[in-house]
Amino acid sequence: MITCLAGGVGAARLLEGLDKIVDEHGEELTVIVNTGDDEEFFGLHVSPDIDIITYTLAGIVERERGWGIRGDTFACLDMLARLGCETWFKLGDRDMAIHIYRTWRLRDGATLSQVTAEIAAKLGVRHKIIPMSDDPVKTHIKTPAGLLPFQRYFVERGASDEVLDVVYVGSDRARPASGVIESILGAEGVIICPSNPIVSIGTILAVPGVREALRKTSGKVLAISPIIGGATVKGPADRMMRGLGIEVSAAGVAELYKDFLNIYVMDAQDAELREKVQSMGVDVHITNTLMRSLEDKKRLAQTCLELLGL
Amino acid sequence: MITCLAGGVGAARLLEGLDKIVDEHGEELTVIVNTGDDEEFFGLHVSPDIDIITYTLAGIVERERGWGIRGDTFACLDMLARLGCETWFKLGDRDMAIHIYRTWRLRDGATLSQVTAEIAAKLGVRHKIIPMSDDPVKTHIKTPAGLLPFQRYFVERGASDEVLDVVYVGSDRARPASGVIESILGAEGVIICPSNPIVSIGTILAVPGVREALRKTSGKVLAISPIIGGATVKGPADRMMRGLGIEVSAAGVAELYKDFLNIYVMDAQDAELREKVQSMGVDVHITNTLMRSLEDKKRLAQTCLELLGL
Repeated sequence: MITCLAGGVGAARLLEGLDKIVDEHGEELTVIVNTGDDEEFFGLHVSPDIDIITYTLAGIVERERGWGIRGDTFACLDMLARLGCETWFKLGDRDMAIHIYRTWRLRDGATLSQVTAEIAAKLGVRHKIIPMSDDPVKTHIKTPAGLLPFQRYFVERGASDEVLDVVYVGSDRARPASGVIESILGAEGVIICPSNPIVSIGTILAVPGVREALRKTSGKVLAISPIIGGATVKGPADRMMRGLGIEVSAAGVAELYKDFLNIYVMDAQDAELREKVQSMGVDVHITNTLMRSLEDKKRLAQTCLELLGL
Repeated sequence: MITCLAGGVGAARLLEGLDKIVDEHGEELTVIVNTGDDEEFFGLHVSPDIDIITYTLAGIVERERGWGIRGDTFACLDMLARLGCETWFKLGDRDMAIHIYRTWRLRDGATLSQVTAEIAAKLGVRHKIIPMSDDPVKTHIKTPAGLLPFQRYFVERGASDEVLDVVYVGSDRARPASGVIESILGAEGVIICPSNPIVSIGTILAVPGVREALRKTSGKVLAISPIIGGATVKGPADRMMRGLGIEVSAAGVAELYKDFLNIYVMDAQDAELREKVQSMGVDVHITNTLMRSLEDKKRLAQTCLELLGL
């Protein structure tokens, strides 16, 4: 069993590659997903990262954008706009069904884990997708404009605010969802996807017990740097790291993971950081980490499995 | 001011005609709408009759069907079906936005009256649409298969069950929504639309105070028979009346309203019932009541206003 820690789009790229090749290796995937960016829109519970991962592993993600469902339409959202609702978060009609269903089931007493499993099963996902916690954790970004929920900072305001701090509201009281700790401890290998180290992986690590499980697991822990040449492929990780006073580099990310990290995969552009990361007691593998085509994704996934000895 | 009591499709036809001509008469419409058929689907509060009336008066109703929004798509519902949900109640994508908004606002503490007014205003409705009550009233149909919520009986099972009884669950405790009693008492004329006398108008009449207000109002009360030649134009009113032991005819409907009715408009096909209805102390007007074209609707609306002396 391979266990992955995942955020949204960056993670989904690698997971698409892993999905295509794990069968040959006789492996199963368990994906632990960030829920700190979950948000309520029009009373509906939206779990952006869980959805991106689910749609990707179900083969229905809109690949160009990296989120939402391929070919989705926006008639419902257009009508909500006509009713005067804020519609900066682009929820498609098929996508909306997922949020309606999730909200309905949660109100009915189901846990986010249960609903996530139900949706994944109905959409034909063969792997296990687990939210990091069934308890609410809210990632808030402290900016000169005030404390912003992540989606307001990221989607509505286009990550344009200076980041002064990041807080995971509720993380101290959050319990890892059933299977989170077990799947880390019992993994043959753990993969930290190339997601935002602050608001995706960082949020999962803020759930009590997760970091300890990563330190204890007998499986090797491998991470792929989301930073290439000092910048992120997508998203505001670089600006966040800068705001938090973290070195904006592949090495800066490794520093955040070094207490549990065994293997670090960095891009060829960052080869000069090899020794710096090795000095943290981490094995370094240099390769091309940019995933554009499906072939890129499969190749990087293959490299990860080989490095984990699987 | 003209006050109308309305169910769904039948009422909407007349209201479309009234909407087109009331300006010339310098009149305003207040429409009191049945909510006994309201139902929850996927945790969303759906008010079928309010929606039909709102969409009609907003000029966006799908005219062929008589319900839903013109040109609406069903992508969201298709995905809900894929998730294993029952989707016999056909909710379009634009329509779904209305239910999402309504549910959101209700959960936030708004009354159904407030939400109904907000939606109508945003959609450009110039008239006042009021739910009969902000309290839940549930029309249940007693059948050999058991007690069925109205939409299950009507939409899911195609009104195919024998009707043994009709119960308005909660009606004894329901308070008329703000404006219901006032708009009846203060009306220059009241129009009982050609809706189902049992599950549309009957439900409104079951709200404490409504029947008394109709008896007391100084404005004349006019009803249009929904039964033509012993059958309904649409819907199961005839089968329901038969099941309840009520004469299935225009006269049978008049009998249900006679304690507050001043003027009764019946179809030319039912001319032989004139004396029977007159013997109830009701003025009878015979005309063609079938509304196919917009001209039919306007003509019948015009007739109603003239009969009310407006």
